[in-house]
Amino acid sequence: MRGSYYTFYRKASTAFHDHHKLIGVCAMISGGGLVAYSDVRPFGSVYADAAQPTTKKTKVVVLGTGWAGTSFLKNLKDPSLDVQIISPCNYFAFTPLLPSVTVGTVEARSVVEPIRNIVKKKDLDVGFKEAECFKIDTVNQKVHCKSTQISNIAGKAEEFTVDYDYLVIAMGARANTFNTPGVVENAHFLKEVEDALRIRRSIIDCFERASLPSLSEEEKKRVLHFVVVGGGPTGVEFAAELHDFLHEDLSKLYPDLQKYITVTLLEASDHILNMFDKRITAFAEEKFKRDGIQVKTGSMVVKVTDKAISLKERSTGETRTLPFGMVVWSTGIGTRPVIMDFMKQIGQGNRRVMATDEWLRVEGVPNVYALGDCATINQRSVMEDIAAIFSKADKNKTGKLNVEDFSEVINDIIERYPQVELHLKSQKLKSFVQLLQSKHDGSAKQATMDIEKFKAALSEVDSKMKSLPPTAQVAAQQGEYLAKCFNRMKECGENPEGPLRFRDSGRHRFKPFRYKHLGQFAPLGSDQAAAQLPGDWVSIGHSTQWLWYSVYASKLVSWRTRFLVIGDWGRRYIFGRDSSRI
Amino acid sequence: MRGSYYTFYRKASTAFHDHHKLIGVCAMISGGGLVAYSDVRPFGSVYADAAQPTTKKTKVVVLGTGWAGTSFLKNLKDPSLDVQIISPCNYFAFTPLLPSVTVGTVEARSVVEPIRNIVKKKDLDVGFKEAECFKIDTVNQKVHCKSTQISNIAGKAEEFTVDYDYLVIAMGARANTFNTPGVVENAHFLKEVEDALRIRRSIIDCFERASLPSLSEEEKKRVLHFVVVGGGPTGVEFAAELHDFLHEDLSKLYPDLQKYITVTLLEASDHILNMFDKRITAFAEEKFKRDGIQVKTGSMVVKVTDKAISLKERSTGETRTLPFGMVVWSTGIGTRPVIMDFMKQIGQGNRRVMATDEWLRVEGVPNVYALGDCATINQRSVMEDIAAIFSKADKNKTGKLNVEDFSEVINDIIERYPQVELHLKSQKLKSFVQLLQSKHDGSAKQATMDIEKFKAALSEVDSKMKSLPPTAQVAAQQGEYLAKCFNRMKECGENPEGPLRFRDSGRHRFKPFRYKHLGQFAPLGSDQAAAQLPGDWVSIGHSTQWLWYSVYASKLVSWRTRFLVIGDWGRRYIFGRDSSRI
Repeated sequence: MRGSYYTFYRKASTAFHDHHKLIGVCAMISGGGLVAYSDVRPFGSVYADAAQPTTKKTKVVVLGTGWAGTSFLKNLKDPSLDVQIISPCNYFAFTPLLPSVTVGTVEARSVVEPIRNIVKKKDLDVGFKEAECFKIDTVNQKVHCKSTQISNIAGKAEEFTVDYDYLVIAMGARANTFNTPGVVENAHFLKEVEDALRIRRSIIDCFERASLPSLSEEEKKRVLHFVVVGGGPTGVEFAAELHDFLHEDLSKLYPDLQKYITVTLLEASDHILNMFDKRITAFAEEKFKRDGIQVKTGSMVVKVTDKAISLKERSTGETRTLPFGMVVWSTGIGTRPVIMDFMKQIGQGNRRVMATDEWLRVEGVPNVYALGDCATINQRSVMEDIAAIFSKADKNKTGKLNVEDFSEVINDIIERYPQVELHLKSQKLKSFVQLLQSKHDGSAKQATMDIEKFKAALSEVDSKMKSLPPTAQVAAQQGEYLAKCFNRMKECGENPEGPLRFRDSGRHRFKPFRYKHLGQFAPLGSDQAAAQLPGDWVSIGHSTQWLWYSVYASKLVSWRTRFLVIGDWGRRYIFGRDSSRI
Repeated sequence: MRGSYYTFYRKASTAFHDHHKLIGVCAMISGGGLVAYSDVRPFGSVYADAAQPTTKKTKVVVLGTGWAGTSFLKNLKDPSLDVQIISPCNYFAFTPLLPSVTVGTVEARSVVEPIRNIVKKKDLDVGFKEAECFKIDTVNQKVHCKSTQISNIAGKAEEFTVDYDYLVIAMGARANTFNTPGVVENAHFLKEVEDALRIRRSIIDCFERASLPSLSEEEKKRVLHFVVVGGGPTGVEFAAELHDFLHEDLSKLYPDLQKYITVTLLEASDHILNMFDKRITAFAEEKFKRDGIQVKTGSMVVKVTDKAISLKERSTGETRTLPFGMVVWSTGIGTRPVIMDFMKQIGQGNRRVMATDEWLRVEGVPNVYALGDCATINQRSVMEDIAAIFSKADKNKTGKLNVEDFSEVINDIIERYPQVELHLKSQKLKSFVQLLQSKHDGSAKQATMDIEKFKAALSEVDSKMKSLPPTAQVAAQQGEYLAKCFNRMKECGENPEGPLRFRDSGRHRFKPFRYKHLGQFAPLGSDQAAAQLPGDWVSIGHSTQWLWYSVYASKLVSWRTRFLVIGDWGRRYIFGRDSSRI
């Protein structure tokens, strides 16, 4: 039984794309401009080397063991690679269950799996170093790392460097405080397993503190006021879990304190769960109201001290102060300092998030990939390439395109620019030809179009470009996509499968990354959940909670974690959640 | 299912004893001398009060939630008591499983149960404060306490006092370092749940550290050298658990590091497990040798630094230094500072351990009881009372005792002085009369004996006095004993059930505490254990491990912990132990 691991990420139906430019001269887009440089270690030579066992393997360094990094590692199969993983965590954590860990619905150890366990079955050379990367040196192709432990000899952390041929950055993000004063010092975040454990201890601490005889009534009220900042899925799920813990478990052990407890959920916009369907938002708001969770929308947090949080009403500008016992901050993500430094170094210093192209290659630097929350895909606009597309389609250089010309490049355009397909969908147009015809003066099949008309027809498609949400689902799909690119590097080098290169000759080696949204859950407590599934299918209630249980159980990383999490759920039903302060 | 708790301490067959002196004037022994004082709140008045619901309940304050305190609380039933529990832990921990927690055979949360859960079913007023008692004021009958949390307002821990009518001290002990320099700073102890969790993280830290590329071979050897100081049951069990973890689990995840690992067990005496039968010691030493655990006996630790431990050979005086990665110190117990201060205050300053009488009353102070590892029973010697015993037996004041006189006091003597029974057993004598006759010149039933002959007959019995081991078993039996005394205070006040008061009139209210040894286990790893059961019955091997499993499962504090621990054992068999660094 041990070591039997099964795929836990859904099989994304989007297939594999192109890395053509890695061979030879590589053109990458940096801040909109074009930078050309030569690729130091072309893939061709790697595969030539692979035949000679004495030569060195291609060194792939992976930074991070979150969803993106782990998904990449799980799907990587090419035995010619020497993989080194650098991460401050020697485990992968199933983060969607972190809100459950904060109150002991699920134990922390049930949602983690040692990364060595995950990769050991592989026919790959994989090494793991528990360390933090603090500098990426793209000139010498090495990363500088620092052990997470303080050496008991030198009194400081060990430092070392690791060389790479390819670097995969999957370091995730940090919590975004919007530079609100006092947040880092006084609020809990909910991104790591340690955060969840700290929150759990902190809740119990509040109750034990409120039980002391020396506290005034007012102090008890303050200490038992739990504030959640951020009405996104994590904040809402945490508030729901907290409410269940307070009312199902702690109320029995601390009956005298019941009257002092309040839970407040703060959201700056007008509604919680605003990325979900309105029906879900309304249900959640209604349920929280019934449960006695105070949902306060439309106010921004301007300051957090050790005992109070200051709010500013967005509409009136009025400020007020709420005393609290514990505050959990869950308002989205920001870029890690090491990534910020790296961005400055590679000419992305003016951006807020690191940019990659559609093949997950970091813009402005060779052999470096970035996936998951630490980067965003900088989508190529159609307008930028419109002249090149037109000229590629106009094979005979007549300055006019006819339907036949179109049909040859249609699929490539749709594959290269996903916004075209989104535009077609939103306009309820069946095909690209129909889109072009809509801008054309006639509907005749034989009609032709010059570049101005072509531009006009496509002028609106770029408005459909949107960046992907920073979710586990996106990260996992990116990891899987990139691993499959690495696995098929040689094969696709010989037979490129990507779309036409409109500004160049030939085809892209791989298809670009395409995200497939499989839906999203919002657990709302009291064994109810909401789900928004593809096709705007909305499901709310107890049955959705059971769907949530089964989906999450099936997605867990190993049979061990699956067994443990299901055991934890059963334990919670029978015995409740533990409130020992350990 | 929730809240259904079952007795987990064995039903000690020793029954209940006497507290007579609590009514009125109380004579207590302090440092061998006799101190008389009046009891401020006699039990009589308590029970008179109980009839009037408006009057205050008798305040019982319990310090500590270990084996002794929890056993006391579990068995306490008298609804006329108002019980306040003060402890820095809001849970009871099943400490015999702590060595298993250090390596993840069992999870920490599986061996703890919130103390509020344990006491909530009671028909008792019970309050719990998560705080540490830092001073006992016996004059005003109050304890001074300090919250375990630093207040986020005052920047220091809240302080408060709690009044008591009766105080039950069950604060346990701390690890004994014998003032060896560097132990507190550099070694792990294994007394609390937190210690076990720290050890677990530390083991993984050693492996992650040894995996760093910057470490030399020699450093790797040092970092993976695990030293256990103390060859008692805890040290041996930890060494065995550690060995299993290293060889069953970590060897698979860190195969390259196998060659650097060593485990050393240090014991100052000549053998490990020297409180056990020689067959067990021999088996354990042999098994550890086969396993590759280096057992080093006969050497004292003289110093511990952050990376090496210095030993001195007891026989030769030679010293040597062993570099280590982690050291666990398990060499017995010492008195806590707060108890030390208290002892000075009550005239026990010259003792190393706090003394109680056989009724668990702290010597030298009224209304204060102490049980478990924080105190020891200062047994009354027969010789001290020999004149009083003789005169009590010699009802007619003839200066001679005959067999009839004896038979009237025999049972009381045996009950009051347990050493008499032990002496009879060791001498293979059937009865007390036989003992007296053995010193008498004849065997005639009608023979008489003067005080000198009586002294001679009993001269050796006091050599059989021995103090109880600092085990969970003793603490639990003491807690149960004391609770039953409290429960039957009124009943036994009217009908004292204890032995005759030889120095006074009447009988003791309760029988004195009598420990019943039920045997002891020593788990030795690889699913083998040794057990020494009463009657010197020795059992070693795999079947003993299964006996261990069933005994420990049955003794666990709640159905929740039982379910979880058995689940953990099953999980360990199927999936191994987790090595995520959380």
